[in-house]
Amino acid sequence: MAAAAWQRLGEYLRDTQLLGSIQSTLYWDQNTTMPSRGSSWRGEQLSLLACQLHARQTNSYYVDLLKEARNEFEKDRLSGDFDSTEEFELSRNLDLLEQDLGRQQNLDPALIKALASAKSKGYELWQEAKAKADFSLFSKALSDLIQLRQEQARQLSEPRGCWETLAQPFEPDLTLIRLEELFKPLRNCLPALVDQVRSRHCSSSQKPMKIWDLDTASQNLLCNQLLKDWGRDESISCVAQSPHPFSITVGPRDFRLTTRLVPGQPFSSFLATAHEWGHSLYEQGLPDQSHQWFSWPLGKATSMAVHESQSLFWENRVARSKEFSERWWRRFSGAGAPVNSASELWHLINPVTPGLNRVEADELSYGLHILIRTDLEIALLEQGLEVEALPNEWNRRCGELLGVTPSNDGEGCLQDVHWSEGLFGYFPSYLLGHLISAQLAEAMARDLKSQGLEASDPIGRLISNGDELKLLDWLRQNVHVHGRQVNSEQLVEKVSGEKLSSAPFLRYLEAKFQ
Amino acid sequence: MAAAAWQRLGEYLRDTQLLGSIQSTLYWDQNTTMPSRGSSWRGEQLSLLACQLHARQTNSYYVDLLKEARNEFEKDRLSGDFDSTEEFELSRNLDLLEQDLGRQQNLDPALIKALASAKSKGYELWQEAKAKADFSLFSKALSDLIQLRQEQARQLSEPRGCWETLAQPFEPDLTLIRLEELFKPLRNCLPALVDQVRSRHCSSSQKPMKIWDLDTASQNLLCNQLLKDWGRDESISCVAQSPHPFSITVGPRDFRLTTRLVPGQPFSSFLATAHEWGHSLYEQGLPDQSHQWFSWPLGKATSMAVHESQSLFWENRVARSKEFSERWWRRFSGAGAPVNSASELWHLINPVTPGLNRVEADELSYGLHILIRTDLEIALLEQGLEVEALPNEWNRRCGELLGVTPSNDGEGCLQDVHWSEGLFGYFPSYLLGHLISAQLAEAMARDLKSQGLEASDPIGRLISNGDELKLLDWLRQNVHVHGRQVNSEQLVEKVSGEKLSSAPFLRYLEAKFQ
Repeated sequence: MAAAAWQRLGEYLRDTQLLGSIQSTLYWDQNTTMPSRGSSWRGEQLSLLACQLHARQTNSYYVDLLKEARNEFEKDRLSGDFDSTEEFELSRNLDLLEQDLGRQQNLDPALIKALASAKSKGYELWQEAKAKADFSLFSKALSDLIQLRQEQARQLSEPRGCWETLAQPFEPDLTLIRLEELFKPLRNCLPALVDQVRSRHCSSSQKPMKIWDLDTASQNLLCNQLLKDWGRDESISCVAQSPHPFSITVGPRDFRLTTRLVPGQPFSSFLATAHEWGHSLYEQGLPDQSHQWFSWPLGKATSMAVHESQSLFWENRVARSKEFSERWWRRFSGAGAPVNSASELWHLINPVTPGLNRVEADELSYGLHILIRTDLEIALLEQGLEVEALPNEWNRRCGELLGVTPSNDGEGCLQDVHWSEGLFGYFPSYLLGHLISAQLAEAMARDLKSQGLEASDPIGRLISNGDELKLLDWLRQNVHVHGRQVNSEQLVEKVSGEKLSSAPFLRYLEAKFQ
Repeated sequence: MAAAAWQRLGEYLRDTQLLGSIQSTLYWDQNTTMPSRGSSWRGEQLSLLACQLHARQTNSYYVDLLKEARNEFEKDRLSGDFDSTEEFELSRNLDLLEQDLGRQQNLDPALIKALASAKSKGYELWQEAKAKADFSLFSKALSDLIQLRQEQARQLSEPRGCWETLAQPFEPDLTLIRLEELFKPLRNCLPALVDQVRSRHCSSSQKPMKIWDLDTASQNLLCNQLLKDWGRDESISCVAQSPHPFSITVGPRDFRLTTRLVPGQPFSSFLATAHEWGHSLYEQGLPDQSHQWFSWPLGKATSMAVHESQSLFWENRVARSKEFSERWWRRFSGAGAPVNSASELWHLINPVTPGLNRVEADELSYGLHILIRTDLEIALLEQGLEVEALPNEWNRRCGELLGVTPSNDGEGCLQDVHWSEGLFGYFPSYLLGHLISAQLAEAMARDLKSQGLEASDPIGRLISNGDELKLLDWLRQNVHVHGRQVNSEQLVEKVSGEKLSSAPFLRYLEAKFQ
């Protein structure tokens, strides 16, 4: 399609993407390198870029250009210029751009400014409140953020409730009814599963967990080995340390991840590396040709839940599998871990200890943490739950679902950063990611079998053989390549032949922990 | 001064500085972290920022704003609103901004674009030519760069010759006549000095240099110790590795330097750290209050020669001194260096071996390398030396001045990157830096004596005592604090009471090497 408006639109999007990727580079630098007192100048750099970006995404030149490109496309469509794939892709790109523009245009610039300042204030007060385990220091800021986000949802005036509206950027097309449908079986089954496993643990004659650690060099060595086995190309990726592990894409050939070394948690950097590399592999596999390329919507990840499904697949389904322990226990033993068999490594890397902390939770109780947060943020945004009542509500639900109660707000409702930055509607993505990962893995196993891999667990077989790159091939061909052509539910149905459900995830948990 | 135009100008300059510092952050990242194939996208990011910056520095809003601020200032000056210091500082800020604007406005945008593309092409071809030691691959690109830079000088139409015009950004107000006056004594004395030292070396019964190295961890430890001793504040500075060591300022509280580990050169990272930290200390000491602050001209370094004088002071006058060796030889010995005395360390860290390579040259022959380059670039730009004749001319002068002749162009006229990026007029800064460093050091010694420090060499005494921070105090108060208030010659005269000359440098060399 050589028409003028379309080309100019592509060039415009490319410059927008360049600016966005400069932001990403600064964010990376801030979290991996920047000296601490560089932060206030960095804040000014980032806010300058944010203003530029917002202007680019809403100015009249862009609005007109998008209209022109739409008209051009409709004209060429009527002339029969496209085959059906092409028509779908071009049309979807325009739809998504128009949707994003509409959202930006609906927002009052004063609200955007107020939100930015409330976020940065909220984050600051949350840090203090968390350090002092004193929710009262943060409650006013949280209350302000809630009001502003409610106002944002009103301004967006989508045919949805407040929480749903705010969740759209993370999970396009998600509804509360659908979410409850997906989560209900987990509400019913997870507590009982956790109880069973806990009582088995208590009644068993297992020795208490050994206290041990690995030195920095050994941990780095194991992480590098993992990335090498999992296809890292050093010419397009790099690794650093940061306080909170993350993965970020800086350019179409520039993928980055961080990990962290936590004293006393010898698997922390290894599992974070597996997790973040899973995110990165998804980004690396996104379509990159022509009009899908990097700066167009179709070249981007479709949802946070799908993103999370990819990181969780590599972390839990692969790195925490029995077969992986079989291949790796000698490496861990050689590095100084107190393991003399695959089974010992597997038990150490798969602890089951329902606790108060989401990030450290095992696969079994993780979902309960998300249910607590999801219910509470819906209550805060839509059901009139008072901010002051949050700590008690949090603690009560923890006791009910997890069987443990926080002794202070620091390990309770202040533990996560999300709400301090006004991030509502994000938490379910983590749990949806578990569901999607499990359902995709079942589809993958069926495919591998139908391709002639004779094994009761073909995924495990490939891991045993050190053939993880074949798992990656499957993900690339079946998941990554679609970008934003489909939303997450459509993707799952396309790949697995069935609507998304919690059944595969529950089957996976039962098989693993019973 | 609360007047409106002046404030708006300050805000405008601040945003310009923010953009410039984003460029610096990307440059830092590119050289320390970025995976290799990220480079083409990075190039696009940088060129987007360069366009934005150029637009900001020449657009009509800025032109009008600067005029308004000038008018406002003249009005307030007539009303007697300023004391003399204030009047000087405000006026000088405006002068420098107007000078920079005038230069930008004189240039045809087509030339700027052509230069950018010729630089990037030149750099690319130079890399290839150097790797293959084949000048013919690069000669056409060099010839294009020379023509474009000649055209640039014509467009700038300053009352100076071509070379002088191009040297102004590095050395404001420098003239060729003055340069020759400063360099002439070096032309006369250096070759003889080098010969003397060489013949002494040959005739002495010294054993050949031992071959040894230090492991990475030890080198890093020594570098960290050095920075700690020399006042590094980790909350405002950070260190990384890069192929070519450099120092860069990313924000008013964000100073960075890199070093590199070179196998078989155990002092390389240590001396590079000393050198780059010297640059950084200068930047850290620049004035940072009110209208001198960071984004105003007066808050910036005054010239590359002064910059270089600061790095050379810390590298050569301090880290390569006898007193420093006395305090450090046990640390080096403990790290694995084959030294059993201060004298052994001092001899190892002060080799005298006139060779073909500028970067590896000793203090004595370094100046000869610069004389060769300065003469040749003047000949290329102003005296009709043909590009094709460059390799022969280079080799002939090397033989004459250094007593060694390159065996190929890779170790000859292709060794430095500067010309490949069209950088003419920069080389003399290195040698002027030696001169300035020596003259400032003599003034410092006099000051310290007059303050009661009884020692034939007060600088050496402070180093012996581990009191290097007192040297830094002196530099801060006498050199760093002036920013661009004075040019480099004015600075030297202000501090030493005498016009800049090569005598202190020659005295220093004679004392050290005889």
